[in-house]
Amino acid sequence: MSMTITEKIMAKHAGKERVMPGELINCSLDLVLANDITAPVAIKEFSRLGQDHVFDPERVALVPDHFTPNKDIKSAEQSNYVRQFARRFKITNYFEVGRMGIEHCLLPEQGLVLPGDLVIGADSHTCTYGGLGAFSTGVGSTDLAAGMALGECWFKVPESMKFIYHGKLRPWVGGKDLILYTIGDIGVDGALYRSMEFNGEAIENLSVEGRLTMCNMAIEAGAKNGIVPPDEKTKAYIEKRAKSPYQFYASDPDASYVEVREYDASQIEPQVAFPHLPENSRPVGEAQGIELDQVVIGSCTNGRIEDLRIAAQIIKGRKVHPHLRVIIIPGTQEIYLQAMREGILEAFVEAGAAVSTPTCGPCLGGHMGILAKGEKALATTNRNFVGRMGHPESEVYLAGPAVAAASAVTGVITSPEEVLGDAN
Amino acid sequence: MSMTITEKIMAKHAGKERVMPGELINCSLDLVLANDITAPVAIKEFSRLGQDHVFDPERVALVPDHFTPNKDIKSAEQSNYVRQFARRFKITNYFEVGRMGIEHCLLPEQGLVLPGDLVIGADSHTCTYGGLGAFSTGVGSTDLAAGMALGECWFKVPESMKFIYHGKLRPWVGGKDLILYTIGDIGVDGALYRSMEFNGEAIENLSVEGRLTMCNMAIEAGAKNGIVPPDEKTKAYIEKRAKSPYQFYASDPDASYVEVREYDASQIEPQVAFPHLPENSRPVGEAQGIELDQVVIGSCTNGRIEDLRIAAQIIKGRKVHPHLRVIIIPGTQEIYLQAMREGILEAFVEAGAAVSTPTCGPCLGGHMGILAKGEKALATTNRNFVGRMGHPESEVYLAGPAVAAASAVTGVITSPEEVLGDAN
Repeated sequence: MSMTITEKIMAKHAGKERVMPGELINCSLDLVLANDITAPVAIKEFSRLGQDHVFDPERVALVPDHFTPNKDIKSAEQSNYVRQFARRFKITNYFEVGRMGIEHCLLPEQGLVLPGDLVIGADSHTCTYGGLGAFSTGVGSTDLAAGMALGECWFKVPESMKFIYHGKLRPWVGGKDLILYTIGDIGVDGALYRSMEFNGEAIENLSVEGRLTMCNMAIEAGAKNGIVPPDEKTKAYIEKRAKSPYQFYASDPDASYVEVREYDASQIEPQVAFPHLPENSRPVGEAQGIELDQVVIGSCTNGRIEDLRIAAQIIKGRKVHPHLRVIIIPGTQEIYLQAMREGILEAFVEAGAAVSTPTCGPCLGGHMGILAKGEKALATTNRNFVGRMGHPESEVYLAGPAVAAASAVTGVITSPEEVLGDAN
Repeated sequence: MSMTITEKIMAKHAGKERVMPGELINCSLDLVLANDITAPVAIKEFSRLGQDHVFDPERVALVPDHFTPNKDIKSAEQSNYVRQFARRFKITNYFEVGRMGIEHCLLPEQGLVLPGDLVIGADSHTCTYGGLGAFSTGVGSTDLAAGMALGECWFKVPESMKFIYHGKLRPWVGGKDLILYTIGDIGVDGALYRSMEFNGEAIENLSVEGRLTMCNMAIEAGAKNGIVPPDEKTKAYIEKRAKSPYQFYASDPDASYVEVREYDASQIEPQVAFPHLPENSRPVGEAQGIELDQVVIGSCTNGRIEDLRIAAQIIKGRKVHPHLRVIIIPGTQEIYLQAMREGILEAFVEAGAAVSTPTCGPCLGGHMGILAKGEKALATTNRNFVGRMGHPESEVYLAGPAVAAASAVTGVITSPEEVLGDAN
């Protein structure tokens, strides 16, 4: 009867004692999520069902974050379509421009996703919430429409992979480096339709923000979900935010995994993923000196307060390189406010960086920093596919906030230690 | 030999003792300006001239502010074209994302435009700098190309109109209200190819920011330029900024005007210009209650620190209406920083407003807050033409920052006094 944390959450939501990998089950949903790109498609499908209500107006989250503040008439129309739907169906968790944030930063912050929850979202990075010990995964807009109507969704129980990170992290190495390193190890299809469970001393010592970053990129290895066993850090993160009861699940010691991978985390250096796949990760030293046109610090992967604090440690009192555009995008209004109060935003603007209102923006080539032909960006985002941030002949390098900040100062890909000296 | 201030500046730059309205003259240029939309066109024309240098690399200002941070691949290509030109021709006053601002807020702040200067810009609101006692006007990209090459431009000396504003302004009435009222009086072609000279007690008491706002909108009455005689306030504004010598000019007491209009400024209420022309201005009371979808506070017209201070006085401690998107765009990085240090940005974000990095953005329907079909916005911008901020069936109402802030709180067009009570 032993199960992994993922299996336990799924079993609970399927009303079953246990579930087995490969089994098809129908689960109740704690939250369904869509954004300004995916919600319109889901709403159209929902309308075809002839529904006059959503399953629970408090369990639908609509976050217009991708092309907002509206970048053009089309995005304005899409946002308005979502807005009108939210009003008509009295969706309480509709988040307007000025009160919103990037969905995957916003929902945990708002206490809308909790340990033990089962969440679907019409966005591939919905897997982020595994960082809190929830099962969450991206779905298509049709599944989302059904989920909005019924509060249920079919799943095939994924096989689980266990990743154990032994030892202590080096300075300037964080969740982003661990996950880039891992994807570099297993490849972008290395966890296809599997659950990635992250364990070990390095994960226990990792902040909740770092765990959210890791789970956010589980999809970049093809995983169904990423998950970290919740602990005291999780509790500290959620206790002031939780709006409903929650439950901590843990894998049984003898739970079965399709694969177990162990790493010596103390040997992992800050990582950079070269174009055009997240699996092209290498130690920053191998990327050293590559000339950049733009640095982006933000996104659902690394737009949280911890990320901005790390970047500010390096940028404060320095100037961004004159040839560079440095664009910093706090993940939510709350993060923006907190960063402002801590003097972090002041440090960025003094350095010559542009600070944007929360938006997914450049990460997906939406707006707010699109690349021209031949330009190169280093970004704390999650995908560096061909043309992801603009022109098909532009290039994106992925890294964590420390490498991004160091590179912002020098104009070329740089390790944090090079900017700060060995003293740090 | 009596002349107006405009005629004196033009005569000086034409190397003449005097000039007469209607006369065609060739003037030397103190500064030529273009942005990310107009510079590419001007650069193409410039290239056709076979020039291997600009007339003076320190007297060309290139400000990518309209569609930046790049909203799409096309704007990225345009910005990059300007950037490469700036590097090739060693343009010192090229302003990159993160170090830039809206051109007409930025140049006065940087001390690049001074009293007595003669400036052309490939942007219709180049007339802004009249607020410092300079002659400045918008030109086409071809004229700009010639200006970049030769440092000279042909002009027909405009006839001058004198506007005298007697008395003291009411609370919450500023430069924007005066100019909207004036355009309402004379119409959008009421000063066609004329110089609008602003005088009187109310102008003397007006801040430099308020004067820049008034001159900014001279073009909205069809004027060639707007101008305010420089004084002690002008001096205080520029003395820490000026990067070169400057000269105050004043109209001779017996200078000749094609028309003189006098107003009792103490009777002017806060104004709102109804769709779809700036001349449709009425006292705010007549617009009271019109439901809004968006409020924009910013632009080259009202994106200066004084504007943000006024808005913050009303918004601080209150919340923006839940149905509204409120988008606040400081005009430059310096203004952004100053507003942050004064707690103004914190007040906006706490209230539920989105604060953007400097950009022209929504003013011209560029990005950062585009309207959907049927939506209504109130904006501190300068034009409310059909479709200006988005969909052809959207509507824009123009007002100053006080009315905009009050309306942000209530969700409908509102006078500041209604929000604050009579005590204020």
